[in-house]
Amino acid sequence: MLDRLKSALSAYDPDDTYLVAVSGGMDSISLLHGLTQLGYHHLVVCHANHQLRGQESAEDADFVAELAERYHLSLDSVEMEVAAYAKAHSMSLETAGRALRYEYFDLCADEHGTQRMFLAHHADDQAETVLLNALRGAGLTGLAGMRMRHTLESGLTLIRPLLDVPRSEIETYARAHKLKWRTDSSNASRDFTRNRIRLEALPLLNDIMRRDVAPQLAQLARLSREDDDLLTQLTTKAEEGGVAVANGLISVPDLAKQPAPIQRRLILRWLRAHEVPEVGLKEVSTVLGLLKTAKLARVNLPGGLQVRRKARTLTIAKQ
Amino acid sequence: MLDRLKSALSAYDPDDTYLVAVSGGMDSISLLHGLTQLGYHHLVVCHANHQLRGQESAEDADFVAELAERYHLSLDSVEMEVAAYAKAHSMSLETAGRALRYEYFDLCADEHGTQRMFLAHHADDQAETVLLNALRGAGLTGLAGMRMRHTLESGLTLIRPLLDVPRSEIETYARAHKLKWRTDSSNASRDFTRNRIRLEALPLLNDIMRRDVAPQLAQLARLSREDDDLLTQLTTKAEEGGVAVANGLISVPDLAKQPAPIQRRLILRWLRAHEVPEVGLKEVSTVLGLLKTAKLARVNLPGGLQVRRKARTLTIAKQ
Repeated sequence: MLDRLKSALSAYDPDDTYLVAVSGGMDSISLLHGLTQLGYHHLVVCHANHQLRGQESAEDADFVAELAERYHLSLDSVEMEVAAYAKAHSMSLETAGRALRYEYFDLCADEHGTQRMFLAHHADDQAETVLLNALRGAGLTGLAGMRMRHTLESGLTLIRPLLDVPRSEIETYARAHKLKWRTDSSNASRDFTRNRIRLEALPLLNDIMRRDVAPQLAQLARLSREDDDLLTQLTTKAEEGGVAVANGLISVPDLAKQPAPIQRRLILRWLRAHEVPEVGLKEVSTVLGLLKTAKLARVNLPGGLQVRRKARTLTIAKQ
Repeated sequence: MLDRLKSALSAYDPDDTYLVAVSGGMDSISLLHGLTQLGYHHLVVCHANHQLRGQESAEDADFVAELAERYHLSLDSVEMEVAAYAKAHSMSLETAGRALRYEYFDLCADEHGTQRMFLAHHADDQAETVLLNALRGAGLTGLAGMRMRHTLESGLTLIRPLLDVPRSEIETYARAHKLKWRTDSSNASRDFTRNRIRLEALPLLNDIMRRDVAPQLAQLARLSREDDDLLTQLTTKAEEGGVAVANGLISVPDLAKQPAPIQRRLILRWLRAHEVPEVGLKEVSTVLGLLKTAKLARVNLPGGLQVRRKARTLTIAKQ
């Protein structure tokens, strides 16, 4: 694991300051250990306590705090009201947890004056994500999975140096170094679907294919990422070349001239720019339906928004 | 089923002549019935007897022959030596069967003076194909799955008008019309991997995702197809724009200028044009390795071929 970690980190100066997300589980504990072995000493250990497992959650937080002290690293931890937030916003615990976690990470970045954070996602996490996205009918962007380096809108760059490392290698490393970690008892329930993919579907698929399918899914992700990046560049070019998106209007004849993959990506950007909530392929298809028939002149979208076709132009506004 | 079949056939004149591949199973029997219901009467029923199940195979052939007679349709059938061919070429029975079947279909096309053949592949077949390809690490082209209309190099166009129809709808149709069909007892063994995907993996995934994942995988196939088609067009453009491929050489600086998705597709075409056997992503990556390091000057490929980098040019030749 350490060799792979080192090569993934070649662009990151060990003397700089970085945030590290540490839940206390095997993956993040191994990442933290590996980073210190490689000479990264200006790390801020960030721990988000989701408070979903009572005493167990509190013990995780204590465990991470002690570890940070032992490593002589700064600690930043927070108690989040995930359950209440999920209820208030009619979200799953998983979605609410993620939203609050990323909000907290942004705060950490401001607080500690660094825009870079290490995360412990590994190759098996990636395989789960890619398979889940495939089963949800996602296009290329979903198949591309998690990226090794990804900058959020807030400016925070997430770095996943273990993304090509299988979980088994991390476990070997953790055991070899006699590391201690916490086991999250809710791992088997909080995100039911993802857990069943990990615990039931992937082992069956490995057995059927007579090999570990995770590297194959990771390869699919890598190829999808390359293809998607190129199509994204072409979309930007189309936008700059005259398909008016930025000013809030889209010219129907301009859009119609584009190939389907560019049309989809342009509309997706346009809807996102207008903050249509949870926009996906379904909403994009709905809007593209306006190009297919002269009969349809308006379609409704989530969030009380409506797209209208008028004088060969698409506009978006509140219903 | 019939409505969907009709709409998928809108471009095909019922008075023209078409081949129909009929194994005798539920799917092809339903397709044949549906076609005659929709007024297609100049059909040639093509049956390839793989002779892998002794008496049962012979009975299938008789069953299809009787059906063709009852429908007053021409019959073309052949007995293929699949097992011997597989052995002679060290292939799986599945691969050998497919190779011989397509060779036979080409002969049928010549014999009966039509370049169009209907096949009974449906949405669940498509889901199996897409999932299998994803698990094999295939890129976009594999994820695109089977196409509703696809012209082979021989000129024969395969048309799959049931590709969007779930198997359950076909079964409903077959039962409603009291159709009789043959059940292939080796379906559960001949292509072990594909059968386990159908009988074990897909039911588990449906259960985990709490929905039928086949339409989701079909959507993934559709999106991948659109994206792949655009990238294929761009590859052709790059080829026409100067990346010399046709004359057997590739200019390294020209190739290096292309984005990764175009590089991959150019090399794949080049290797296929030079008839590198069973060429895939692995071989493409091997060749692209020549661009990454000055140390490597030649790589070996299957079929005793070798690619060399010399004077900033890639050439391919026998070792």
